[in-house]
Amino acid sequence: MKPFNAMSKEELSKEKEALSAAFAAHKAKGLSLNMARGKPSNEQIALSMSMLDVLTSSSNCNAEGGADCRNYGELTGIVDAKKLFSAYLDVALDEIIIVGSTSLTFMYDCMARAMLTGVLGSERPWMKEETVKFLCPVPGYDRHFSICQFLGIEMVNIPTANDGPDMDMIEKLVASDPQIKGMWCVPKYSNPSGITYSDKVIRRLAALKPAAKDFRVFCDNAYAVHEVYGDVPLLNPLAAFKEAGNPNMLYMFGSVNKMTFPGAGVGFFAASKENIAFTTQQLSMQAIGWDKLNMLRHVRFFKDINGIRAHMKKHAALLRPKFDAVLQKMETELAGRGAGEWIKPDGGYFITFFAHSGCAKRIVSLCKEAGVIMTDAGAMYPYGKDPNDSCIRIAPSFPSLTDLGAAMEVFCTAVKLATVERVLAS
Amino acid sequence: MKPFNAMSKEELSKEKEALSAAFAAHKAKGLSLNMARGKPSNEQIALSMSMLDVLTSSSNCNAEGGADCRNYGELTGIVDAKKLFSAYLDVALDEIIIVGSTSLTFMYDCMARAMLTGVLGSERPWMKEETVKFLCPVPGYDRHFSICQFLGIEMVNIPTANDGPDMDMIEKLVASDPQIKGMWCVPKYSNPSGITYSDKVIRRLAALKPAAKDFRVFCDNAYAVHEVYGDVPLLNPLAAFKEAGNPNMLYMFGSVNKMTFPGAGVGFFAASKENIAFTTQQLSMQAIGWDKLNMLRHVRFFKDINGIRAHMKKHAALLRPKFDAVLQKMETELAGRGAGEWIKPDGGYFITFFAHSGCAKRIVSLCKEAGVIMTDAGAMYPYGKDPNDSCIRIAPSFPSLTDLGAAMEVFCTAVKLATVERVLAS
Repeated sequence: MKPFNAMSKEELSKEKEALSAAFAAHKAKGLSLNMARGKPSNEQIALSMSMLDVLTSSSNCNAEGGADCRNYGELTGIVDAKKLFSAYLDVALDEIIIVGSTSLTFMYDCMARAMLTGVLGSERPWMKEETVKFLCPVPGYDRHFSICQFLGIEMVNIPTANDGPDMDMIEKLVASDPQIKGMWCVPKYSNPSGITYSDKVIRRLAALKPAAKDFRVFCDNAYAVHEVYGDVPLLNPLAAFKEAGNPNMLYMFGSVNKMTFPGAGVGFFAASKENIAFTTQQLSMQAIGWDKLNMLRHVRFFKDINGIRAHMKKHAALLRPKFDAVLQKMETELAGRGAGEWIKPDGGYFITFFAHSGCAKRIVSLCKEAGVIMTDAGAMYPYGKDPNDSCIRIAPSFPSLTDLGAAMEVFCTAVKLATVERVLAS
Repeated sequence: MKPFNAMSKEELSKEKEALSAAFAAHKAKGLSLNMARGKPSNEQIALSMSMLDVLTSSSNCNAEGGADCRNYGELTGIVDAKKLFSAYLDVALDEIIIVGSTSLTFMYDCMARAMLTGVLGSERPWMKEETVKFLCPVPGYDRHFSICQFLGIEMVNIPTANDGPDMDMIEKLVASDPQIKGMWCVPKYSNPSGITYSDKVIRRLAALKPAAKDFRVFCDNAYAVHEVYGDVPLLNPLAAFKEAGNPNMLYMFGSVNKMTFPGAGVGFFAASKENIAFTTQQLSMQAIGWDKLNMLRHVRFFKDINGIRAHMKKHAALLRPKFDAVLQKMETELAGRGAGEWIKPDGGYFITFFAHSGCAKRIVSLCKEAGVIMTDAGAMYPYGKDPNDSCIRIAPSFPSLTDLGAAMEVFCTAVKLATVERVLAS
């Protein structure tokens, strides 16, 4: 099959007619499918159901050291959970705080506290600065961007390659602009592209010399063990920042929401001892503690880091056929047609598709017409604005394989139709 | 027995000698007791243990309407929990949001959001105002005051009588000072005094005419059903504010942390429809949702508002003998001695003792010497400063009756000794 841009007007018109007919046929099926949310499937959720049996009315609910998980106390989390999740993030026991059910809320909270009071070493609350800017590797996670937008933090796009964000650009920007107070990143199986930052990128991040003395890398390590096609190692971020003499420059976040029950999991925050002490002091103003029974449930369910790894192999086994199905369909339908490119992710929850420039919105809108909900075009960029109107995020985890097949039929038809329309109009 | 201030110098010196000897004897026992924290006892916690059995690996985890409590969704909480806790607070279904495990964190969060962005109707974020002030009925809850202090909100003490705070003073202050953006209150079985605001006080609060158009009453309804000596009704705050034409002036908070498992409970926020819609929009920037499995556990455990009421009768039955023991000991040892006064609470978690002016710190310090930890003197006032150095909060819930007896022996001896020292020195 010829690439669309090598076709004559006549060929393109014919193609458009055929694609429109195919699209109308899809529409007639009255589908109602959703590939928008990185939501574990029912089969994945079922993997954790036995966690609901580990605490019963006859259980001993004491944590290691004797803390009663049924009563007040332990602001920074029970020691058992600290052991488990510090092993998970490869940090020390005094470099972690176990928080409430999600890490997103804690990321917001850290950002809000920085605005209200500043971080360790701030001269004043960030909100008292004239402007606060954050660097945002793109495409990225919409909810990170929403937090910045909500708090009035100006966002700066940073292009991302397959080994991480453009470090030349980041180094230059942070060195010269003291209004840049931090950056977001998802270093492993990144949301949405599924790539993992190279050791070199992590080392360059760790060695940044920002003009702002209270600069923070908000590192959302959401997918630390969320492999799909085998593990891709990530250089230990906190170790790298310590080695580079910048231990306090890193805030790292993690959670089990895509391991056990989304929304009913456990979140955690890792950072240098100094940052942890500073944050603990601040948290004592806003909380007595978080749900220790749920921490205990997770500890007794996973037992140790090997328990987590074994559990995540089962998740990968359920996710892999779905990722395969999406990638294979794109290969069959779109390869060599000049209708877009995609990244084969190593892990995580998404497949990123880059449509012919100017086509993403049209594709998402066509899909919707045919009953297939995709993440909004633009959502992977600050302010919802994709400068090329090109990036589309596909979330294959929740639908069944059958539904996924039907949705991908619609998607590929929509991609081709939108591309033909575009090439014809150009 | 004579009151201390009616004694001669000689009598006082003799008394001091006897009390010092008694105190030394207490000290020699090497006690280690704690009456500082409003913490349910193990017997109270045991009342909820069967809640750990209501969800197992074979349970249907769907909420009413079909929402899967094991996966993402339902930012404002499951409808089942809204039904239960809206009945509890006597508000409508669209006047409540069910949040994470504690209400304190949500109170902080509401205050932080007000500072960062303002509330519904604010002209600017509160943090952009020159000064933000909050009225604080005293004695009050130290953690409310910590939130204000942490966020740089100036606190103004408001004296409280047995029917609520000094409304003349509040009306006058809020009408004239636009920097006063709100006030704290615990209207039922107040922390620490255990009194309940009269209908008249609630109506006057509801009818306030603040100079600040975005004034908010932060109403911590923490003890709505936490009776000890039978129910004392509270006029429905939200209904009163609506009736007075000020529906948006009230933020109400509640939680089950002193019904089921402290720290592992469910918190909720009630307000006008408009406030709920505004808050929901803001929350969508910072959260995907809170632990719905824990909401479901609570719903299936309590079943309905009658289940809550029956459960709280059991708590009252466990608390009453402890409150009785404290009150009786004070009656026997201190009544008519001019060594302080106390309030007999209707419910809640505390008994408030007002020592002879200038004696509270000394009493708490004496207790500590003898191994009895009391809440810090001053903690019930903004900035930890009790202007009379008089107020002491006694938390009788956690210790056993035997320990409580021993602790009260120490306390009463310390009260008398400190009073005699003071009278002698004056």
